[in-house]
Amino acid sequence: MILLRSHIGSALRASRVAQGRTLRDVAKSARVSLGYLSEVERGQKEASSELLNSICSALDISLGEVLLTVATQVRTQEAPTLTVVDDAA
Amino acid sequence: MILLRSHIGSALRASRVAQGRTLRDVAKSARVSLGYLSEVERGQKEASSELLNSICSALDISLGEVLLTVATQVRTQEAPTLTVVDDAA
Repeated sequence: MILLRSHIGSALRASRVAQGRTLRDVAKSARVSLGYLSEVERGQKEASSELLNSICSALDISLGEVLLTVATQVRTQEAPTLTVVDDAA
Repeated sequence: MILLRSHIGSALRASRVAQGRTLRDVAKSARVSLGYLSEVERGQKEASSELLNSICSALDISLGEVLLTVATQVRTQEAPTLTVVDDAA
């Protein structure tokens, strides 16, 4: 099943890792607990809209860009799987 | 403040209204309470990822399309406001 929170968590984690930052650093900056941020990143907890804004702000990324990334990923996952038929056989 | 739940709620409501369907009908189809769906549509409650999927399914829309709409709206709202300067004055 496609879960929005999993995709949002993955996008946030990817941004944090790309910046070479620790969970502790970003959690402190976003004023959320390290455990909360970790659960959000792993898709185990739904981030409230307010805390999602705080985390985006701590990462210096825009919510719109995160959502665009997530929308693209979800649409790819929703696309029907193409079946390759080997006519040459 | 830009709130993800408000944008998601607006997008869901717009889809429902465009289909000429009632809250009662969609809530029943999605197996959520009418009050819950109403609060989600008005941005007063965060929909869990699972129930968001149920609502999208009840509306026969894809989560990816909803997110793309939302991402576009959020990015527009995030864009810096252009100030019109009237030089002719």
